Amino acid sequence: MAGTITTLTICRTCRPEGAAADAEPAGSVLVRAVARAATDAAAVEVRAIACQSACSRACSATVAAAGKFSYVIGNLVPEDAADLVAFAEAHAAAVDGVPPWRSRPERIRKNTIARVPPPGADHPLVERLEPAGDA
Amino acid sequence: MAGTITTLTICRTCRPEGAAADAEPAGSVLVRAVARAATDAAAVEVRAIACQSACSRACSATVAAAGKFSYVIGNLVPEDAADLVAFAEAHAAAVDGVPPWRSRPERIRKNTIARVPPPGADHPLVERLEPAGDA
Repeated sequence: MAGTITTLTICRTCRPEGAAADAEPAGSVLVRAVARAATDAAAVEVRAIACQSACSRACSATVAAAGKFSYVIGNLVPEDAADLVAFAEAHAAAVDGVPPWRSRPERIRKNTIARVPPPGADHPLVERLEPAGDA
Repeated sequence: MAGTITTLTICRTCRPEGAAADAEPAGSVLVRAVARAATDAAAVEVRAIACQSACSRACSATVAAAGKFSYVIGNLVPEDAADLVAFAEAHAAAVDGVPPWRSRPERIRKNTIARVPPPGADHPLVERLEPAGDA
């Protein structure tokens, strides 16, 4: 599934701890920065969301595509926009959604909160279990 | 998409901070507990994975289904197995994968690390953005 579109979703309501309550949410600023950075990224579709439940690590973003691993990234600032788009492009290019280590910008590597395996798909990292009794 | 199967994936290599390096990973214990707890959960498929990149909040689990929001849960212990399965069942029953608040066990609510919107799908929480120039 290399070459598919990756959805890059930015939380537009994220406010890092200590941010002024009456200021524009940092997440909204990040949304604009990412939209600009993604102008030429044909494989990346940018979306904004009202809360990704990753509030303690604001600002947050996710990358996802059908049948692939998805990723959650936190502690983001607007200056990370280009790195985020580069990571989303690497995700789009990776058959299973797991970009090679060298394709992950350092800021993204260091602030990866989690990766979610694709539902119902076989993958070398994942082992399917049968529900067990008391065995 | 209510009534579909939800994949509940447990990290089997998770070791909470300070855990003995020569002991069985707590994640492996959690895998067994969840497999037992899911015996009668027809809508839940249990899988184990080698690392979900949520190591700082071990033990971790994810729930996912095609076209739905997925969730990442952390700080789990084997005693959370039944709550995890109940949450996965609520996820399977929710059309968009967002279980009603009352269907989320308290331990799961309090330890939700992130939710990932479904790629390429429309949802009231999500706004699609067009790549922008310098506008």
